[in-house]
Amino acid sequence: MRNIKLTVAYDGTDFHGWQMQPGKPTIQGTLVDVARKLTQENVYVFAAGRTDAGVHALGQVVHFRTQSHLKPEEFLRAFNALLPKSIRVLAAEEATLDFHARWNAVAKTYLYRIHRGRIVSPFDWRYALHYPFPLDEEAMAQCAKEFEGEHDFTSFAASSGSEEVDADRSTLRMIYSATVTRRPAGWGFLPVTAECGDVPADGYELVITLRGKSFLRYMVRKMVGTLLEVGRGKFKPGDIARLFELKDRSQSGPTVPPHGLFLVSVEYPPAWWKEKPATPTAQDTT
Amino acid sequence: MRNIKLTVAYDGTDFHGWQMQPGKPTIQGTLVDVARKLTQENVYVFAAGRTDAGVHALGQVVHFRTQSHLKPEEFLRAFNALLPKSIRVLAAEEATLDFHARWNAVAKTYLYRIHRGRIVSPFDWRYALHYPFPLDEEAMAQCAKEFEGEHDFTSFAASSGSEEVDADRSTLRMIYSATVTRRPAGWGFLPVTAECGDVPADGYELVITLRGKSFLRYMVRKMVGTLLEVGRGKFKPGDIARLFELKDRSQSGPTVPPHGLFLVSVEYPPAWWKEKPATPTAQDTT
Repeated sequence: MRNIKLTVAYDGTDFHGWQMQPGKPTIQGTLVDVARKLTQENVYVFAAGRTDAGVHALGQVVHFRTQSHLKPEEFLRAFNALLPKSIRVLAAEEATLDFHARWNAVAKTYLYRIHRGRIVSPFDWRYALHYPFPLDEEAMAQCAKEFEGEHDFTSFAASSGSEEVDADRSTLRMIYSATVTRRPAGWGFLPVTAECGDVPADGYELVITLRGKSFLRYMVRKMVGTLLEVGRGKFKPGDIARLFELKDRSQSGPTVPPHGLFLVSVEYPPAWWKEKPATPTAQDTT
Repeated sequence: MRNIKLTVAYDGTDFHGWQMQPGKPTIQGTLVDVARKLTQENVYVFAAGRTDAGVHALGQVVHFRTQSHLKPEEFLRAFNALLPKSIRVLAAEEATLDFHARWNAVAKTYLYRIHRGRIVSPFDWRYALHYPFPLDEEAMAQCAKEFEGEHDFTSFAASSGSEEVDADRSTLRMIYSATVTRRPAGWGFLPVTAECGDVPADGYELVITLRGKSFLRYMVRKMVGTLLEVGRGKFKPGDIARLFELKDRSQSGPTVPPHGLFLVSVEYPPAWWKEKPATPTAQDTT
């Protein structure tokens, strides 16, 4: 038996989230279909984070057990040949048999993109929340810091269930960092530069980046929704601590829409792997 | 009577090009529908460049004549409220009555994106050609220079018709600059940086940028196709001059797919707008 780890990017727009559901296109369902085709075994694919419908990933990590003799490099190639273009396997590695994408993760990073300007580029509207209203960004950055450390996130959880349920169903979660930064809006992938002539630039982008040990269901989107209400003046610095104490999800900000959210990367302790990962190089030809 | 100039960006993926066609979604058809709804007049919308199916725009320029009393600012707002998110009006201006988006353009800039790497990001595959084969980029940059200046582009034209047919149906065209440059591939809009953790980077992007007075139909895509064959060694520095002389479109490279192509911007002589007194001119004809 072997254990294969894949790093996966996907555009969540057209999927009903990670979790397999009968009759609906999901990331897990699509990966499982391809894995079963390739191995001719009844494999199952586990993810580090079970992203909700509409959420994207740049570096989701998954694993599956198989008796196949395909090399990681061959899995990389075969998955990308059979998957739709909206899901790409970026790396395939041989992991130790006891590696589990979810349970062994030591950190996950999410980012949420907010477009600050009147007009969202036709290349960006699927991937950023349009929020053209005034925001006190300094207060947002200050309150983001209050999320850092270990806290009971009951006020920022879904009404029931969680992305990751601990054995003891704890709502304690550790946030390593929470930041609010500006960057140029760009036109999709194309930054507005001299190269692009006189295309009018519109606004900028606010990026909320959260790195933590693990997250409750909807937790990132409730945290972002609360930070937006901080920006609108509904909450003030100091209020996040108060919300932690209230343990009441109805008191915090709303759950923002999924399309601005990206699972950026998942971190593991070193030396879970058996060999050097098969990662793409520019010289390779198809 | 007034003349309104709009700067428009669009994702060409789901449209059958600029030109109105019965029963098919086109950029022109969509803009005309909205303009007629807003003005309650039988307006017609003219573009600087009639982009083909699948081609995108960052700064297409269009104009239409109307007797409406809406201010440019109100047109901007109303168009964006009624258009699909894949088409955005970036700017609206009052132009002189004799302004014509196509005939008064002094320069247009196109760029073509080529992904150099094994894996195309799920956020990029609609907007860049995947070309993972070895390329002699120095030879490509050298040959690009040979396109500059005024030449007979018969060898780089469509078999019939042209984007812009001169009164004399000339195939002479002036290219101001033609460059081949590298830039980081990024993951869609997201450059691979420390911020993104350990998402594996894959390859880079080759961008071919062409600025010229005007272009024949398929000319940009035939030029890019020829430059790719230069990169593959089929043509060598000096061969572009030979192709100009042959005046045979079957001798040049293939027409590359439309999805990597962007109309970046359109330039006009200064002061076509308000400053110039409105003088009556002959009716616009296509």
